[in-house]
Formats: sequence, C-alpha cells, structure tokens
Amino acid sequence: MKYVDKRFLMKKAVVSLSGGLDSSTCLGWAIKKGYRCYALTFDYGQRHIKEIESAKKIASYYKVPIYEIKLRFPWFSVSSLVSKNKKLPDLKLSEILSGKIPSTYVPLRNLVFTSIAASYADSVGAKYIVLGPNVIDYSGYPDCRPEFYRALEKAINYGSKTYASGERIKILTPIIKMSKAEIIKLAVKLGVPLKLTWSCYYGGEKPCGKCDSCKLRAKGFEEAGLKDPLYE
Amino acid sequence: MKYVDKRFLMKKAVVSLSGGLDSSTCLGWAIKKGYRCYALTFDYGQRHIKEIESAKKIASYYKVPIYEIKLRFPWFSVSSLVSKNKKLPDLKLSEILSGKIPSTYVPLRNLVFTSIAASYADSVGAKYIVLGPNVIDYSGYPDCRPEFYRALEKAINYGSKTYASGERIKILTPIIKMSKAEIIKLAVKLGVPLKLTWSCYYGGEKPCGKCDSCKLRAKGFEEAGLKDPLYE
Repeated sequence: MKYVDKRFLMKKAVVSLSGGLDSSTCLGWAIKKGYRCYALTFDYGQRHIKEIESAKKIASYYKVPIYEIKLRFPWFSVSSLVSKNKKLPDLKLSEILSGKIPSTYVPLRNLVFTSIAASYADSVGAKYIVLGPNVIDYSGYPDCRPEFYRALEKAINYGSKTYASGERIKILTPIIKMSKAEIIKLAVKLGVPLKLTWSCYYGGEKPCGKCDSCKLRAKGFEEAGLKDPLYE
Repeated sequence: MKYVDKRFLMKKAVVSLSGGLDSSTCLGWAIKKGYRCYALTFDYGQRHIKEIESAKKIASYYKVPIYEIKLRFPWFSVSSLVSKNKKLPDLKLSEILSGKIPSTYVPLRNLVFTSIAASYADSVGAKYIVLGPNVIDYSGYPDCRPEFYRALEKAINYGSKTYASGERIKILTPIIKMSKAEIIKLAVKLGVPLKLTWSCYYGGEKPCGKCDSCKLRAKGFEEAGLKDPLYE
C-alpha cells in the first residue's frame, strides 16, 4: 500500500494567535478537531513583544507553522495598547464589563487581522479561519461581536478565489459565547499549555495583575476554581 | 468674525490610491465633491515601485496627505504581480475580459487594503472610504464586485467605534460600473493629471503596451477617442 502523508488529508485552517489565553485555547481546539493549522501572529506595534513570543512558543508546542506579520499603521497610536505615551486604563471589573469602548481599543484591529488571515486562507486553500473573539467577559471592543464576523465571512467569500471556485471559507469562533471560566476549563481539558500564554497589557517579568486583561483572566480562574499557572 | 479653517467643516474621506488611472480618478472625484481626503498607498511587494511613486505624485498634486503602508505577506508570492519568478500573462483582450481569474490575482488584496483604510477612517473620524474598483473593463478579480463591497461595508460598521457611536462609515465606489472609456472621459473632465498615473504591470521607462493592464488602458483611450498622455 502506498504511503500517504496524513496531513494532506486534513482540513486546513488558518489560526490567528495573539499569544493570549483565548486564541491559544482556539488553537488547541482546532488541533483536537483534527484541522491542519497554519498560524499567524501580528506585530502591530503593541507595547511589548512578550505576547508575540508567547504565540511562537504555543505554535512551536503544537508543531504548527507560524508567520509573524509586521504592521505599522501610524493611526494605531490612538490606542493606549500601542502608544506608550498614553496611560493604560485602571478600571474596576464592573467598569471593564460595562460594554464601553476603552482606550485600549485599536481601530478595527480584528477586521484587519481577519482580512489578512482570509488572504492567507485563500492562497493556501484553507477553508477555515479559527479566531478567539469573545463577547462575555470581554473589554467592549465592537470588532468581537458575532454579527461583525458573520458580515465579514460574507465579504471574504464574495471577494475570494475560493468562493469563485465553488467552495467556501468559514470563520470559526469556538469560544465567542463562553465565559472566561468556561474558556479556562476548556483549555485545561484540551491540555493547552496555559503557562506559555500571556494576557497582561504590560510586558513585565510577571503579569501586573491590575490591567483590564489581568483582571478578566483572574476572574476567570477564580470562577473556574483553578490556579493560574502563570503565578506558580 | 472669527476665522474658521474651512477644512474642518469638510467631510473626511480616506482614499486608497494605487497610482493607476482608476484610483487617481476617484481621488479627483472626491476632491471635486468637496471631501477632505486622506490617502493611503500600499507597498505589498509588487514587481516595481513605479505605481507607488505615481500615487505619491498624485497625492502631492492634490495636496493630500498620504501614508505609504508596507505589507509583507509571504503568500502574496502566489501572484505573478508580486513574484518575479512567475511570468506575467500575455493574453488577448477577449481573454482578459472573459471573467476568468488571472495569475495576477493577489489573494483578497482589496479586502486587506479596504480593511486598513477602514481602520484609518475609524481612527480619524472619516465617514467615507473612496475606492476605485471596476467591474466592466477589468481583470476578473472577485474582490472588485459590488456585492463584496456591500458585505464589507456592513462588517466595517459592525466592528467600528464610529458605528458604536451612532454614525456610519460608507464605502464609495464612484467608477465601479463605468467602462474604461467613461472613466477616462471623467478623469479628463475633472482635470486629473493622467500623465502622472501608472497602469503597466512592468516598471519600465515607458508602459510596455502589452500587459493586461496596458491593453485595458489602451482600449479605454481608443474608445474615448483620446490620446494617452503617457505616450506623448
């Protein structure tokens, strides 16, 4: 019997990986589901490269190829997540979860990242794009909402060679309606190496524990009744 | 009476400028309509930088600020418009206009460019994005079609801060249903400096006259009964 490399029989998926808890869980999910994954991570001038390093470690853990895409848009500096001259917010949990758009919002970042992932998918013949947006315990970014991704999936298909050839590209957002605690439980069940992830908006030795992202992560671990391995 | 700088009363528009005939005509159109324009041009590793130089000259002619955005996506090399190892097609006009996707197709290029323009618009408070796609005398790229832009406009709005604040971003495609001849007549009427534009896929001293883009341009000038100033 002729030897066939199994990887060529697998469905391909492009996975956008930030290095955080959510997108890493999505990669673990896609691997478990049997997708042959192609990762992308974005250097868009964020305050520190710690999350990019995390993304690379996680891709390497899963033996998935990863491209680091460098983007420099002068207007991204309106965000406190990019400009070091701007103070990061110091909000209470209730304020973070109020749905107000915080100063960390990077204008249509997820639109740009997903478009680039779609371009990659259209060129390697991947029919799936796996993304980790979430609308439950999140920071109020409008480009995380399901209706945004539904409209974008339509645009991607109308514009792509894949669709013109009679196939479809699907956006998969497996954790979009999960609470942070549920995402953490899923990650643990899937064996995602959470110790390698990075969520803190600052790039210190240890997470600051005070920024919006640290607070949401801590709330999740607390509700899940688990200990964050980053603090071990 | 207090002096008010008129520019602050004008509607803002982000204009994606390739340096070609179509997008330059769109900039001339937007200026004529009274928009305060912000131009973007993309260096995505195309064969030559001649069109980027053209875009800058045209922006400078109209005294419009322009950002040059550098994008390096390894998979763009599937396109003969990017990879110098691939031969550019040498098709008859009827083949170009057949609607088949040619080897010059860059995967979802217009999706990526428009997303970046939308991100810029969302950050400077521009409510309009002006683009030059065209479906009449064109090269069969699926990301030029009206339904693609309609779906994308929806996605842009759902994901943007602008929309969350009760406003809308509109994509304007003034020449989408014009023939090349009609675009050229409009450009001449608007006084667009066509001598500064560049359409040829090669970056020579003079346009090659043989590539798909040169052929479509020549057909347009012929049908309009005008002489292309690039050949003067």
